[in-house]
Amino acid sequence: MTELSPPRGMRDIVWQEAELYEYLFSEFKNAAKKYGFEPIITPTVEHFALFEAKSGEEIKKSMYVFEDKAGRLLALRPEVTASVVRAYLKLMRARPKPIRLYYVAQCFRYEEPQYARYREFWQGGLEVIGDQDVNADTLVAVTASEFLDRVGVRHVYEVGNVALYRAFMKKMGIVEEMQDRVLHLIDKDRVDEAIKELQALVGEKGVEVFKRIISAEDPDKVKDLLQDYKELLSELYDVVMYEQSRLYNFITALKELGYTARYRPKLVRGLAYYTGLIFEYKVLGAEESPSIGGGGRYDGLTAVYGGPFEYATGLALGIDRIALALSGNPQYPEAKTVMVVVLGNVPLSAGYRVLKSITGYQGTRIKGFTYRPRSLTRGLEYGSRIGCDVVIVIGEKEYRDNVVLVKEMKTGEQKVVSTNEVLDAVLSILRSGDYSRPK
Amino acid sequence: MTELSPPRGMRDIVWQEAELYEYLFSEFKNAAKKYGFEPIITPTVEHFALFEAKSGEEIKKSMYVFEDKAGRLLALRPEVTASVVRAYLKLMRARPKPIRLYYVAQCFRYEEPQYARYREFWQGGLEVIGDQDVNADTLVAVTASEFLDRVGVRHVYEVGNVALYRAFMKKMGIVEEMQDRVLHLIDKDRVDEAIKELQALVGEKGVEVFKRIISAEDPDKVKDLLQDYKELLSELYDVVMYEQSRLYNFITALKELGYTARYRPKLVRGLAYYTGLIFEYKVLGAEESPSIGGGGRYDGLTAVYGGPFEYATGLALGIDRIALALSGNPQYPEAKTVMVVVLGNVPLSAGYRVLKSITGYQGTRIKGFTYRPRSLTRGLEYGSRIGCDVVIVIGEKEYRDNVVLVKEMKTGEQKVVSTNEVLDAVLSILRSGDYSRPK
Repeated sequence: MTELSPPRGMRDIVWQEAELYEYLFSEFKNAAKKYGFEPIITPTVEHFALFEAKSGEEIKKSMYVFEDKAGRLLALRPEVTASVVRAYLKLMRARPKPIRLYYVAQCFRYEEPQYARYREFWQGGLEVIGDQDVNADTLVAVTASEFLDRVGVRHVYEVGNVALYRAFMKKMGIVEEMQDRVLHLIDKDRVDEAIKELQALVGEKGVEVFKRIISAEDPDKVKDLLQDYKELLSELYDVVMYEQSRLYNFITALKELGYTARYRPKLVRGLAYYTGLIFEYKVLGAEESPSIGGGGRYDGLTAVYGGPFEYATGLALGIDRIALALSGNPQYPEAKTVMVVVLGNVPLSAGYRVLKSITGYQGTRIKGFTYRPRSLTRGLEYGSRIGCDVVIVIGEKEYRDNVVLVKEMKTGEQKVVSTNEVLDAVLSILRSGDYSRPK
Repeated sequence: MTELSPPRGMRDIVWQEAELYEYLFSEFKNAAKKYGFEPIITPTVEHFALFEAKSGEEIKKSMYVFEDKAGRLLALRPEVTASVVRAYLKLMRARPKPIRLYYVAQCFRYEEPQYARYREFWQGGLEVIGDQDVNADTLVAVTASEFLDRVGVRHVYEVGNVALYRAFMKKMGIVEEMQDRVLHLIDKDRVDEAIKELQALVGEKGVEVFKRIISAEDPDKVKDLLQDYKELLSELYDVVMYEQSRLYNFITALKELGYTARYRPKLVRGLAYYTGLIFEYKVLGAEESPSIGGGGRYDGLTAVYGGPFEYATGLALGIDRIALALSGNPQYPEAKTVMVVVLGNVPLSAGYRVLKSITGYQGTRIKGFTYRPRSLTRGLEYGSRIGCDVVIVIGEKEYRDNVVLVKEMKTGEQKVVSTNEVLDAVLSILRSGDYSRPK
């Protein structure tokens, strides 16, 4: 007996849940395309080294890593941005920038499975490479919001900017690895520990700055604070003021477009490659739950991988969490189902001709299939159990007479029509009653 | 410097090629849904044992196999049918049958990369579980043809039926593993070797039957042949006659629907789980090239995995080969591109309001994005390089006056319109000239 479960932490997605996933994949891609993003498909498997550099401590610890038969150290991708940057450097450097890219892809992490956290999970992502302006961050954000609005997920933005912390730490002579460590602690909501680490390095005075910035809840207040430290920041002052304005402009644009967006100074996000503005999506009314996605600036990740410096920003949405937020309340319209039953020695092609005359119709969402059951009774019973709206029967007599029997399943009403009137008969059933509402 | 190439045999799919893949994924799913198939998403990673049983010798030798941190022996899926059957047994047994399922998924094989053969490749698949009738085979075939027709791949069917060979071999007392071995040799076009192996087991007389069947090119001739061996086949005679009629009905239905379908007695296909009718798709005019997909009966694979016996049939199309057949000649309509340029201190939200008024229009395929370049010159140059059809400019003066500048890139003509007339202005440009043809 074969083990019927998938590997631990992985799963089969079937029935309504699979339809919901397909719907989300498709709507995400539609929104991305509509907003000028182009698709990219990168390998599911990458060299481990690709993720070693900048994926953040936690991700590195929880990767599926293995050797192939030639001894190459490979990994199942834990996220897609590293692959996109690699592909950019290899294939896209000559293209006019900014470049807008989207993907929908499964990613993997090896960690203890828990509620709504799987070892294989789906991400929909957007990236803009080669644009320093905060409009690029806004473009990815608005595109994702368009998708979320469309599928019916009311959401809010939480926004931060790690560049502010990085600038101060840099000014105080803290090396990048230590900066990553401090930011990692803040991300894990271990702010006290982060401050203790800092204290050991920069003393009480340096920590005071940090404490003040991390408690400012209003971007305007941050601006005032930064002005207080103009002297300390010296040549980095303009940089942090620019980053503060970026934060302000991003939040303002989102608010003006009708979204809820708030500054959250403790927002850091797990990935070590973020360099500036960052943001997360929360489901409205469930802000304490994990985010359903997020993103931010990763300027210069191209240089980490050995290429020239490029500005870049992007985001990824967690399709699994979005599906979970929508489960039980899917908004997508279901197609009506028509079954064509072919009986006895009627040629199979007769069923397909009738089927094609129906599925070829573009005006209403109709799906259909042919079935040759052992008996009409068995066919009708099956049609009823799976919720067919209309059943069309072609028995041997009907075939000889060039007609079919059209049966409305809900009422049991049926009539005989000629084969070239089938579509009209089906449409007249589907337009009557309450077939226009989703099931 | 990071290695910028993906792992050997894998690749990045970008630009037009990625658009073509996305188009193929989407059209395949549309055809499947239209013909009553439901989506299923199974894990990319499975227990190795799942593929050990019945995947065919070659596939087993060329799998990516690795241990996870807990010592589980896992494999990257080499194909999806085994996973679908596993998921059926675990989750779907109580559902009314037949069950129609579709998937689009990447699969993996570890073998020497060659032209159009990658270590990661994409398959679109259809499965019907719980239907013995040849109409089920026809349903998957016609659905796949609908997709191929739609994307513009003219194709022919090559059809065989391994049940005929299996019945004879069974009758001669040849065990299943040896049957698999003989069929494997035929599949590799090593018919002489297959016959030699048989000769050692069943002698000259047994081989003669085999030789005659494998050279019959016409299903009707096969029928006559089978009648010659009625006595030899004894209780299996009805089975083989049924299988011959299945072959005949399948080919006839396809021909009546306008497809080219021919019997090819040497067709076997690599997977050891096929039990009866099998078929492959070839590109019309390139029949010597590898098939672009195929499928067949795998009755009872459910029992191999420890469940009750179920009839089942299915197919998979190789998306990579279909993309290759279409490359240079994509048929899909391209969307028109509109860029909204926001300059200076104009609020970013103003650009998005204009963008949304355009992308919200459903009647014509329009995509668009906002961009805030350092200067208008830089913006227009970028728009021209990436082939924008229309550029909309919102400078500070335009913003104050509640107007925008609409510029047709091909002619350079431009005019100022009020913000609520933007869509009309864009549509009037796109409807004029030859914008209605794909680029």
